[in-house]
Amino acid sequence: MLAGEEPLEIRIAGAPFTVTMRTPGDDFDLAAGFLVGEGLIRGGADLRRIGYGPGVDAAGMATYNIVDVTLADGVPGPDPATARRVYTSSSCGICGTSSIEEVTKQSRFRVADDPLTVPLDALLALPDLLRARQELFRRTGGVHAAGLFTVGQQGPELLWLREDVGRHNAVDKVIGRAAMHGRLPLRGTVLQVSGRASFELVQKASMAGIPVLSAVSAPSALAAELADEVGMTLAGFSRGSSINLYSRPDRIVG
Amino acid sequence: MLAGEEPLEIRIAGAPFTVTMRTPGDDFDLAAGFLVGEGLIRGGADLRRIGYGPGVDAAGMATYNIVDVTLADGVPGPDPATARRVYTSSSCGICGTSSIEEVTKQSRFRVADDPLTVPLDALLALPDLLRARQELFRRTGGVHAAGLFTVGQQGPELLWLREDVGRHNAVDKVIGRAAMHGRLPLRGTVLQVSGRASFELVQKASMAGIPVLSAVSAPSALAAELADEVGMTLAGFSRGSSINLYSRPDRIVG
Repeated sequence: MLAGEEPLEIRIAGAPFTVTMRTPGDDFDLAAGFLVGEGLIRGGADLRRIGYGPGVDAAGMATYNIVDVTLADGVPGPDPATARRVYTSSSCGICGTSSIEEVTKQSRFRVADDPLTVPLDALLALPDLLRARQELFRRTGGVHAAGLFTVGQQGPELLWLREDVGRHNAVDKVIGRAAMHGRLPLRGTVLQVSGRASFELVQKASMAGIPVLSAVSAPSALAAELADEVGMTLAGFSRGSSINLYSRPDRIVG
Repeated sequence: MLAGEEPLEIRIAGAPFTVTMRTPGDDFDLAAGFLVGEGLIRGGADLRRIGYGPGVDAAGMATYNIVDVTLADGVPGPDPATARRVYTSSSCGICGTSSIEEVTKQSRFRVADDPLTVPLDALLALPDLLRARQELFRRTGGVHAAGLFTVGQQGPELLWLREDVGRHNAVDKVIGRAAMHGRLPLRGTVLQVSGRASFELVQKASMAGIPVLSAVSAPSALAAELADEVGMTLAGFSRGSSINLYSRPDRIVG
């Protein structure tokens, strides 16, 4: 059994904004999360409407491969000077910026002063908690997962988990769902991802106000730099009995 | 030790064409391979010049994060109607197409009639041969690899291997190197990749004329569909003693 991978075009008020290769499902969350990552919205209140746009295949069947977003009154759209016409692959999240200078985005939320602390054993437990719920991975072996957790006195609690062929899509779907529930900024949460931590994942977490990002595999050097710069705790190689902390290790206790 | 991840802007005749997050190194090969995947060039003869463009950091040091390509006389540049202004992440290869229709590209090369056959045991041996040469992975645990092989009577022979935080970049670097050596189409070769096989990797292999693509992990459904359509042999979950064949299994013998 193979994981689905289909293009999704996200439009803003009918104008093409980006195309991403994603696993179909939770498409409105994906679009909302992508717009959070782009700094355009903070939640459902910034949207007037979100729905499938027109789109039919050769046989005239609806394809559900276009999501059209209308921003709420007073919410500025994308800067036309940096208008994007972007095709993003199944592994690409922050596609669309036209020059190197635009790569780093400014978050509305500060994660540096989030007072969250996470017991080390709780952090180490997250990959297994994630894997136990990765239904699509169990069937296909070919998808990434992102899970958003709170860690209370009773241990970790999963808020939302999403799977996708693109790791950035899984993160967008989780953040988008949270945004649609009015939960941004995501203070006091931990984002656990199944793969590597790239620059773009740190950026997406920062744009959503998530103070702790933990990856099963390695971060890149630039991911660690950005996490350090914004005051996010970045963990990698979380392997049950060991973990590496690359920035703000003070949040991990015990 | 963390793998490097830095933006690289590829320009054509001075005009921004794409930005990708990549592990620095072999940047000219990366640019050439990307242009092969976009259908713009077939080899070094289609280029008049390739070199680092201007670019300095805040301290005035050269950044080597811009590669400027000048196409040879008579080689058409990108269609202005589909001009791209694209930021691609470390996992994104085919970024930049502005609509769903443009996702699938037409290859100049037919892989369907490539008469290559590969002994099963040789195909199964490729992941270990790749891993034995993954120097950057050994040090960082955080990069993908792509290796191009021929399989003769003496068994598999590695032509080129590249590692990168982006799997598409590793493939671009290998294909670009081959293109600069006048080796396209890559008839009779096997491309082994360390991770999953996405739609974009099948497309890049097809654009370079590679008849067999083998992945250590899972392909997506769309990857298998495209491989079937172009007549490429697609293998996945290559795990030493077992492998899955998703298309054109007739090329794998014994």
